[in-house]
Amino acid sequence: MKKEEIRALLEKIKRGEISVEEAEQTLVRLPYAELDFAKVDHHREIRKGIPEVVFCQGKELNEIRAILKELLTHSRGNLILTRAGPEVYRGIMDICPQAEYRERARTILVWREKQEPRGKVVVMSAGTADIPVAEEACAVCEITGNAVERLYDVGVAGVHRLLAHLPSLEKANVIVVVAGMEGALASVVGGLVACPVIAVPTSVGYGAQFGGLAPLLTMLNSCAPGVAVVNIDNGFGAGFIAHLINQSACRV
Amino acid sequence: MKKEEIRALLEKIKRGEISVEEAEQTLVRLPYAELDFAKVDHHREIRKGIPEVVFCQGKELNEIRAILKELLTHSRGNLILTRAGPEVYRGIMDICPQAEYRERARTILVWREKQEPRGKVVVMSAGTADIPVAEEACAVCEITGNAVERLYDVGVAGVHRLLAHLPSLEKANVIVVVAGMEGALASVVGGLVACPVIAVPTSVGYGAQFGGLAPLLTMLNSCAPGVAVVNIDNGFGAGFIAHLINQSACRV
Amino acid sequence: MKKEEIRALLEKIKRGEISVEEAEQTLVRLPYAELDFAKVDHHREIRKGIPEVVFCQGKELNEIRAILKELLTHSRGNLILTRAGPEVYRGIMDICPQAEYRERARTILVWREKQEPRGKVVVMSAGTADIPVAEEACAVCEITGNAVERLYDVGVAGVHRLLAHLPSLEKANVIVVVAGMEGALASVVGGLVACPVIAVPTSVGYGAQFGGLAPLLTMLNSCAPGVAVVNIDNGFGAGFIAHLINQSACRV
Amino acid sequence: MKKEEIRALLEKIKRGEISVEEAEQTLVRLPYAELDFAKVDHHREIRKGIPEVVFCQGKELNEIRAILKELLTHSRGNLILTRAGPEVYRGIMDICPQAEYRERARTILVWREKQEPRGKVVVMSAGTADIPVAEEACAVCEITGNAVERLYDVGVAGVHRLLAHLPSLEKANVIVVVAGMEGALASVVGGLVACPVIAVPTSVGYGAQFGGLAPLLTMLNSCAPGVAVVNIDNGFGAGFIAHLINQSACRV
Amino acid sequence: MKKEEIRALLEKIKRGEISVEEAEQTLVRLPYAELDFAKVDHHREIRKGIPEVVFCQGKELNEIRAILKELLTHSRGNLILTRAGPEVYRGIMDICPQAEYRERARTILVWREKQEPRGKVVVMSAGTADIPVAEEACAVCEITGNAVERLYDVGVAGVHRLLAHLPSLEKANVIVVVAGMEGALASVVGGLVACPVIAVPTSVGYGAQFGGLAPLLTMLNSCAPGVAVVNIDNGFGAGFIAHLINQSACRV
Amino acid sequence: MKKEEIRALLEKIKRGEISVEEAEQTLVRLPYAELDFAKVDHHREIRKGIPEVVFCQGKELNEIRAILKELLTHSRGNLILTRAGPEVYRGIMDICPQAEYRERARTILVWREKQEPRGKVVVMSAGTADIPVAEEACAVCEITGNAVERLYDVGVAGVHRLLAHLPSLEKANVIVVVAGMEGALASVVGGLVACPVIAVPTSVGYGAQFGGLAPLLTMLNSCAPGVAVVNIDNGFGAGFIAHLINQSACRV
Amino acid sequence: MKKEEIRALLEKIKRGEISVEEAEQTLVRLPYAELDFAKVDHHREIRKGIPEVVFCQGKELNEIRAILKELLTHSRGNLILTRAGPEVYRGIMDICPQAEYRERARTILVWREKQEPRGKVVVMSAGTADIPVAEEACAVCEITGNAVERLYDVGVAGVHRLLAHLPSLEKANVIVVVAGMEGALASVVGGLVACPVIAVPTSVGYGAQFGGLAPLLTMLNSCAPGVAVVNIDNGFGAGFIAHLINQSACRV
Amino acid sequence: MKKEEIRALLEKIKRGEISVEEAEQTLVRLPYAELDFAKVDHHREIRKGIPEVVFCQGKELNEIRAILKELLTHSRGNLILTRAGPEVYRGIMDICPQAEYRERARTILVWREKQEPRGKVVVMSAGTADIPVAEEACAVCEITGNAVERLYDVGVAGVHRLLAHLPSLEKANVIVVVAGMEGALASVVGGLVACPVIAVPTSVGYGAQFGGLAPLLTMLNSCAPGVAVVNIDNGFGAGFIAHLINQSACRV
Repeated sequence: MKKEEIRALLEKIKRGEISVEEAEQTLVRLPYAELDFAKVDHHREIRKGIPEVVFCQGKELNEIRAILKELLTHSRGNLILTRAGPEVYRGIMDICPQAEYRERARTILVWREKQEPRGKVVVMSAGTADIPVAEEACAVCEITGNAVERLYDVGVAGVHRLLAHLPSLEKANVIVVVAGMEGALASVVGGLVACPVIAVPTSVGYGAQFGGLAPLLTMLNSCAPGVAVVNIDNGFGAGFIAHLINQSACRV
Repeated sequence: MKKEEIRALLEKIKRGEISVEEAEQTLVRLPYAELDFAKVDHHREIRKGIPEVVFCQGKELNEIRAILKELLTHSRGNLILTRAGPEVYRGIMDICPQAEYRERARTILVWREKQEPRGKVVVMSAGTADIPVAEEACAVCEITGNAVERLYDVGVAGVHRLLAHLPSLEKANVIVVVAGMEGALASVVGGLVACPVIAVPTSVGYGAQFGGLAPLLTMLNSCAPGVAVVNIDNGFGAGFIAHLINQSACRV
Repeated sequence: MKKEEIRALLEKIKRGEISVEEAEQTLVRLPYAELDFAKVDHHREIRKGIPEVVFCQGKELNEIRAILKELLTHSRGNLILTRAGPEVYRGIMDICPQAEYRERARTILVWREKQEPRGKVVVMSAGTADIPVAEEACAVCEITGNAVERLYDVGVAGVHRLLAHLPSLEKANVIVVVAGMEGALASVVGGLVACPVIAVPTSVGYGAQFGGLAPLLTMLNSCAPGVAVVNIDNGFGAGFIAHLINQSACRV
Repeated sequence: MKKEEIRALLEKIKRGEISVEEAEQTLVRLPYAELDFAKVDHHREIRKGIPEVVFCQGKELNEIRAILKELLTHSRGNLILTRAGPEVYRGIMDICPQAEYRERARTILVWREKQEPRGKVVVMSAGTADIPVAEEACAVCEITGNAVERLYDVGVAGVHRLLAHLPSLEKANVIVVVAGMEGALASVVGGLVACPVIAVPTSVGYGAQFGGLAPLLTMLNSCAPGVAVVNIDNGFGAGFIAHLINQSACRV
Repeated sequence: MKKEEIRALLEKIKRGEISVEEAEQTLVRLPYAELDFAKVDHHREIRKGIPEVVFCQGKELNEIRAILKELLTHSRGNLILTRAGPEVYRGIMDICPQAEYRERARTILVWREKQEPRGKVVVMSAGTADIPVAEEACAVCEITGNAVERLYDVGVAGVHRLLAHLPSLEKANVIVVVAGMEGALASVVGGLVACPVIAVPTSVGYGAQFGGLAPLLTMLNSCAPGVAVVNIDNGFGAGFIAHLINQSACRV
Repeated sequence: MKKEEIRALLEKIKRGEISVEEAEQTLVRLPYAELDFAKVDHHREIRKGIPEVVFCQGKELNEIRAILKELLTHSRGNLILTRAGPEVYRGIMDICPQAEYRERARTILVWREKQEPRGKVVVMSAGTADIPVAEEACAVCEITGNAVERLYDVGVAGVHRLLAHLPSLEKANVIVVVAGMEGALASVVGGLVACPVIAVPTSVGYGAQFGGLAPLLTMLNSCAPGVAVVNIDNGFGAGFIAHLINQSACRV
Repeated sequence: MKKEEIRALLEKIKRGEISVEEAEQTLVRLPYAELDFAKVDHHREIRKGIPEVVFCQGKELNEIRAILKELLTHSRGNLILTRAGPEVYRGIMDICPQAEYRERARTILVWREKQEPRGKVVVMSAGTADIPVAEEACAVCEITGNAVERLYDVGVAGVHRLLAHLPSLEKANVIVVVAGMEGALASVVGGLVACPVIAVPTSVGYGAQFGGLAPLLTMLNSCAPGVAVVNIDNGFGAGFIAHLINQSACRV
Repeated sequence: MKKEEIRALLEKIKRGEISVEEAEQTLVRLPYAELDFAKVDHHREIRKGIPEVVFCQGKELNEIRAILKELLTHSRGNLILTRAGPEVYRGIMDICPQAEYRERARTILVWREKQEPRGKVVVMSAGTADIPVAEEACAVCEITGNAVERLYDVGVAGVHRLLAHLPSLEKANVIVVVAGMEGALASVVGGLVACPVIAVPTSVGYGAQFGGLAPLLTMLNSCAPGVAVVNIDNGFGAGFIAHLINQSACRV
């Protein structure tokens, strides 16, 4: 029930067109039934800067196409499709020829409004095998208007590579650290910088890495403060919260 | 080696007081040996706004006293002692009579400089038993100069209690969600707000809660984006990263 | 040993055709040997309303065909084949042309008696990827004569979508909540309604979702009472117990 | 905002005492701010039949006393305090002398209205050490008005003990099975009866029982359908959902 | 219903004192209701050679006393009380002065009939800290009439100690191997002997021993065939099955 | 070094053909170097009754062929090849045409000596999907000369099916219980019989069955004594220890 | 910044070519920015004896080719490519025809300098299925100049096979023990020898071996001291540390 | 049987004092029965340099006293008692007044022969709470004759502290890294040095540190090669293998 409808109802009462009892009936059920929650959500989405995200994993191509068509028709902002293999990209090209496919990130971007990138998000990866997850984070940050700097293959087995980049790290509003194996990079970075660090464990490794459990626990137990963690291989989630933090630092 | 010392060395060369070889000897070992790293750290600490944190768990009273004495003498900022039982507080009162003890948070605060609280951090707890962890987060945020609003006992078993506070939540720069049991609160809050959510699983519960494992996994798998997680019962860590995010939103 | 046989035996004694000792011999071994347990089971099945269920996973097609033939010949009630891929359906069409295949639910239904659906079971899913499990629950409930209402894609990341359906939820005799990711939906629903909630964790998700472990623990630790849990991805089990509860509410 | 207040507001509009704009202002914020959610909850509670439950574990005595005082003043229904040690009982006797303490169940019951017990809930325990958890389930069922039958120490190590009780089991609307060790009782009972079975794993056992993990997994994987599971040692939760099921079977 | 009662019933029919219908009524419910299952159990217990075992852990002293009194009155065989601390022994001495207390095994034996020990069970422990569990196994074997040989502190860190005992091992009908730490002893013994090996992991160790999980997994994965495993610290269970195997080897 | 060789050496000394020093040299290294351990092993194998087992999983066909050729040439007893897919069977038929392939058990038997089956081993399975593992156990028992009785599909969901077989179970020297899902069958059988029960958890199931973990824990925590456990899906291991127990019961 | 550059800078100051301020500017940022860390690394690599390792798993062929080309151009030492399937070998043969492929070890060796193998590393495997991991360790040791002795298939199920090799084991500087199943070999070897033992758990096994978890825990809990552990299936890591230990024993 | 006894036996044969048969009898049983294995062990112990270690945890004082008395009488080398609380030290002072107690390491050293410390072992700890475990490693190394350098509180949260010590690290033959929390220090050190690193995870931390599991997994998955791991909190084991490596580097 939109604001205007409430007002219309109230005016009907005033004019005596409906009884108090009838109006009461409607209003009592308000919070659960017809309230215009959509407005709230609309508001939230605008502030968050991501109108729509389609998580493609586990969806069939025709489902993805249907969702995409609706979004292209009824929304105006940028779109992002995550966990999208090449077959998805091929499968949607006819209805969305402007789509940009980032193969490594398995992400499709649909740019419909471009702003000047703002602030600074640094996305680091410990190894080269972690790059797909890092690129997913980058994609999210870029389509939501953040300036992104990539620092890849700077794992702690050669800590000097990392130190060489310290001046750059110190200028970030937020740093996303993507690491598999043992995931120690998050702690080392957390100890060097003064901005929030979002750590993403990856499933890169074998044996007692247990599909990402090892770096997940490492990151949760980071001896350096200022580190928070998202799910294993969740580049999207890391990029999204990094976007929120960076935008907030730029907003004021 | 402080900046001034480097300059003094250079001037000695210029004045011919030492040979190039001698100076070279000193400078080559710089990064590993005498370089004034402390300055770098000092810089970092000032920006982070927490000069010193003492994690008391596992330390003996005389160790804590020794550390505290040194900090009171050689640093000037606020101090925070975490995981400090009443016996610690009693044991340091003679050397630090101005200490403020927050029993529920098991935290000792030593205020030496007070700024006007800035921005807005909301700290929520799902149940009353989660409050000690939430209070630890509050203590960290307060001593580092952030304005904190507490919303306790708003678990999802009564989701309307939560909804009633939505207008307040929408004004936060960052929200800390502290929850034991199944930890579902983080997802629900993450779905309602547009700012970053820092989720803290607690060990409150029994049986298959497995000492906090249940809410930890819940929070890591949050279906709402914008949620990052810290260690089980880690109120300090959540408060610290919330502080970094809130300050960054205020800084500009 | 059927009732008639016991009676026959007793009459033989009465007529003196066998001795008391001989009859005693037979009767003492009764519980372990020839007792007509089948009758008891028959009784149970009628009350439960499901004459036969065939769990197809891990069975070869010729085994499934053999079982199905026997059931078609010797039983008269409805049949349900679960975890049945399309190849199973194709492979039994010749012997059971009336079979209804529900592809998403991977379930084959054989209707041989149709009653008016009774009561009300609500089956909810948090995401679209959870629908196959939810549909399995629906199939079980429908073939056993329950009225089913589906509410899909109402996860807690958008809690208002859920609230909009509250009036409908309040009329259910039992609600089945199917959720992957973190599974928080069960707690939220449990806090809103007054009927029993059967929660089904699914393996939908990745990383620290650990194949359904995350929502399983979430649901077991639900802070809302009135929630009980079945195995990961066990749509059949949830539908079955929902059927028992709904029938019991209708029976009186 | 209570129903009467909404009506009062509407009548003011009708009488022209306030403007449509003013009323609109109030009503738009309804769902989040002043809506009388309590009424909704009240409705839910009356249907669920448990006005208030106090989970005492982790609460200090003065907290429990404060909550209890408020409940004794502002509610009229029965009360139940769970996980309450003898010191809690002794500590509340002065303010609630009518309290009934069930030591084994660690539960305090405050009867303020007594109905005739209805329906039939059977609560079974596999061993004697599981009885405290079973008694907690019984306490919940009894104070909410259900007829309860106890069958204790009927573990599967002596399956005939169980079979001897079959006629009684067959009359139940719902059965609560409480079992530690390996928890096999739930499967056996599930295979014998036609009503829903709520299984409660307990932490009774040692070694690879892993604090209840063994029976929890057993029960979740029950080869007999019609079994749903609650948290380890969660007698309260099992009793509560059993109450919902039994009342629903009696209601019609 | 005892055998005599069945006979009495049958004779009543024969004499025409009751109708066939009445008798049928009674007999049809036999297996579930009044059948003399106790006899069956009695039969089983005699063959197993252990009339009664009382697992004391988690039972209060007065419960143990009550059970013991009943056993002393109504059974005639040997008794064994396991997991019995010294306070239990002291607490039952007045009613059972003949009890033998084995402190290390935390076991109380009540000898009422003594046979010549038969066959040969070897009970080995890897370390001295595993001896309490080993002694529990010995106690069970001894009170059930088996000849027991102890070989303690023969862990694989000094494999020659083990080899020195090979001639003795080769004469055993069954060997119980009790080992904590990594539990490798079971594999080595399994590779040396031709009789069944019952392996008991213990919780002796620390860190990644995880309360017995390490030796449990070791023993389950034994590369030597002929090894079966019981629960962590379950000396009773190992002794019991060793008794069954040894008796069976002697019986013929 | 064979017995005869030692004797030859000693006689050489006696005859003065070698010096004491030379003989000493040889004998001192005896236990580690040339000692005739093979004899010991030979002895062990004859007693165990299985000359050679080839575990095919992870071996390439040419490796299996090489091992088999050697065994066919240098040993005379029966052979058994486990975890052998049809391609293995086809791949060895030319060199071993007498091989018997049991497809379900994935086992190849090479009979070279046939004895009259002795004693009685009962192999039970809870479900039909557990049969392959059960058949592996049967194959081992049969080739080693034990009389085997199969009881399949007697899971506890229909406990009467199990009870109907009790007279047969009571005659076994040892029972192998193979069960997936929750594995409760082992406990129930353990409570009914007086012989040792060897329990084999299988990976049959899904979700929280965790690849056999659920029945493994169930069986380790069996509330019925007399149950020991082997690895998940380890039909071979169960059959082997059952063979040892049965032979021992027959031997005397 | 190389030593010479520092010297050049200093001489510029001396000659007055740059100001003290300018030089200070450069030197203050030294540790993080331009310092010649490469020299340090170069030093480290020479001492470690492995110029470059390429971990192929997860890299695409063109990436591997690019890295290899660069190494062939810019480095002069031996190269090793691990986790390289046959397709990798085929794919690099044109640019590196001298490459030696070890199929079982899935390792490619590029010999460009050959030293006389030094010291003694013994690499043992418990079973034949563990050989690929053992061979990876051998490959690393050989290309880095260590003398390697292989002892395969000496698992503890036949401990005499192991003892027969004791004289050889006693001459090693370090022993690598590769074992799957339960991994008991490490403990037994650790108890027999006086040199360090590097234990490698493998994922060889099934069921409760849990992908290598069982031998990992076994090895970590080894009751014999002198054993340290690397990751599951990590033949490379074991070979590498064995190389370090052996070289260190040879160096002096 | 000592070498001399074998010789004596052989000479008896030569002299015809015993028959060949008698001698054969004795010699055939040699490896299992009377062989002088002790000599072998003696040899091993001398090389390893630790005559006797007493692990006190789980032993009663009188057991420890008895073992210690025997060692003081029958051995001559240094002794070490680990996991010894102050009450153990007090309880053995009368029989071993020369004992040195290291309270933090919970270790008692009995020096009976002192050599000049050789080589260089560096023992590092990440935090101050890890020092007790580190000190246990130091104690083992020192009593076995190794020169030890301690570097405490150099965790990666302040990586410059670590870098400052690099010159010292580069001179070590082996480094022991002791770390709790997330244990990232091992990876960073492993990336900086060229000697073997022995990593010891500790149980220092809370929440998802899971009693040392987090740093254990971190260390096993170290992205830097040259790192091997011992059990959680196993300072003794780390010190022991470090001793073996250091002695081997010094031996030549």
